[in-house]
Amino acid sequence: MTRSRDVPSLVAKARQGDPRSVARLISLVENGDPALPQVAAAMAPWAGRAQVIGLTGAPGVGKSTTTNELVRALRETGARVGVLAVDPSSPFTGGAILGDRIRMQDHSADSGVYIRSMSTRGQLGGLSAATPQAVRVLEGAGCDVVLVETVGVGQAEVEIASLADTTLVLLAPGMGDAIQAVKAGVLEIADVFVINKSDRPGADATFRDIQGMLALGDRGPGDWRPQVTRAVAVKGEGLDDVVAAIGKHREWLESTGNLQVRRERRAAAEVSALALGVLRARMGDPREGTALGELAARVAAGELDPHAAAALLLETIS
Amino acid sequence: MTRSRDVPSLVAKARQGDPRSVARLISLVENGDPALPQVAAAMAPWAGRAQVIGLTGAPGVGKSTTTNELVRALRETGARVGVLAVDPSSPFTGGAILGDRIRMQDHSADSGVYIRSMSTRGQLGGLSAATPQAVRVLEGAGCDVVLVETVGVGQAEVEIASLADTTLVLLAPGMGDAIQAVKAGVLEIADVFVINKSDRPGADATFRDIQGMLALGDRGPGDWRPQVTRAVAVKGEGLDDVVAAIGKHREWLESTGNLQVRRERRAAAEVSALALGVLRARMGDPREGTALGELAARVAAGELDPHAAAALLLETIS
Repeated sequence: MTRSRDVPSLVAKARQGDPRSVARLISLVENGDPALPQVAAAMAPWAGRAQVIGLTGAPGVGKSTTTNELVRALRETGARVGVLAVDPSSPFTGGAILGDRIRMQDHSADSGVYIRSMSTRGQLGGLSAATPQAVRVLEGAGCDVVLVETVGVGQAEVEIASLADTTLVLLAPGMGDAIQAVKAGVLEIADVFVINKSDRPGADATFRDIQGMLALGDRGPGDWRPQVTRAVAVKGEGLDDVVAAIGKHREWLESTGNLQVRRERRAAAEVSALALGVLRARMGDPREGTALGELAARVAAGELDPHAAAALLLETIS
Repeated sequence: MTRSRDVPSLVAKARQGDPRSVARLISLVENGDPALPQVAAAMAPWAGRAQVIGLTGAPGVGKSTTTNELVRALRETGARVGVLAVDPSSPFTGGAILGDRIRMQDHSADSGVYIRSMSTRGQLGGLSAATPQAVRVLEGAGCDVVLVETVGVGQAEVEIASLADTTLVLLAPGMGDAIQAVKAGVLEIADVFVINKSDRPGADATFRDIQGMLALGDRGPGDWRPQVTRAVAVKGEGLDDVVAAIGKHREWLESTGNLQVRRERRAAAEVSALALGVLRARMGDPREGTALGELAARVAAGELDPHAAAALLLETIS
């Protein structure tokens, strides 16, 4: 827990780019610290400074390597880069998960790069609320680009990635490919596809499958047509094309007014997630003799139907 | 939309095992039909009749084949079996996803098996609310076992699977294995591991890795020790072991009182998801001139911080 009086100095130091202060502010976000509203208020004016890039894909497509090389390519354009590697917490332990905190050491000596993995132990509203808040900390610290990398291909991760200004979806040949992308719901959210491991057999087929699926899409004349790029991240190949596609998408976003639309959508998701988090907290823990616990026991026993129980629950929390 | 006066006859026919009526009731759940509270009230008395088995795993481990063979093995014990293949909808289109509705045709002529894929187009409270309601329909229709298969390895899917009485986690050799299982948060929720494709190289290593990770777990003397089974679902091998492990877990659940605990947890998740769904509906669509839309625009513009916006939003909906 952070003392409220520490916040102004922490924010001031983060604004000057002090990495420890940036890290501490993101920890406040992650832990749902009581000082969070104060941090959010202090950071609000820098909202929207950075381009937020979501990056998602199934396990095994090479997300970490691609992120690492993409950071390198973005740094070469002179941009300051923040990376948030989002680890959805286990529903039970809420624990941190191995691995991410110890990777991307390539950039550890570069003061133009912040890298943080993030879970959501105590955060009201979960990742939908926590991610934009952490992005705002990185924006406040002067990042021009924030990469939000999500582990996995589930609904929550897809949603987080889709709240970015530009969403990259990574695929790799021979992983079930296009059909899996459809199943995971990533086809509709991708602004840029990156076919990683493009030196492997099957890369051409994956490329054609994705192009074929995109051709089926219902797109108007002013709509964005998702770009399909190829990379071999482990050799550092193809990342310039990815950066170019990101730039092209950015131009489209700005020229069409879609940047504003996406940012309001992100803000709406954040605000509603926070509000729902407050309401969820009011419901309390069902194991601790709350109204929710009593209602749940009656539903489990077949004495009450869940809709009636929900209506009774709403009376207790509003 | 279903007329309220149709519900009693639909429920009566579903109770007699009529597959069309069962299918229509699950469609009501899926679409968030206004008649849903009436259906829920009619089905409430049969809550808890079936053993609910969650089945999850990363894309490519062979979930569909394993589910198919597991249905066969369960049918051989004489059980009536329901299968819900849960497709998290895309956050944007909410559309149905290819594939699942046309598979498992092996069982299409067997009147002791109901198979349904399910997404959550209009459902208040999303899959956390829809899944238990669809389970209750299958319980009402006389199923002894309901398999809930979730696509993907994301947080939402893990949560749904974890709300079962017994949770199976499928792995396959050479897919990143144990570390990926940890990253996906499935290690803590698994009651039974199934190492599918156990005839492939690396199966022994996967088996050892999982056993090793389980040995690290902090377990008391009365706690359940997750079982690790091996299968080659495509050849129909090993499913009897899986069924035996499920039965053993069921005995543990009953003898320790944990069955009741899990069911109340599931009911609590359902009731709170429904209540939050009602509240979310009150917030309205941010693109339609609602208070949420106005607040989001101010947050995106940096004029208001999201916590302050959430507090203002709560005033408008309670």
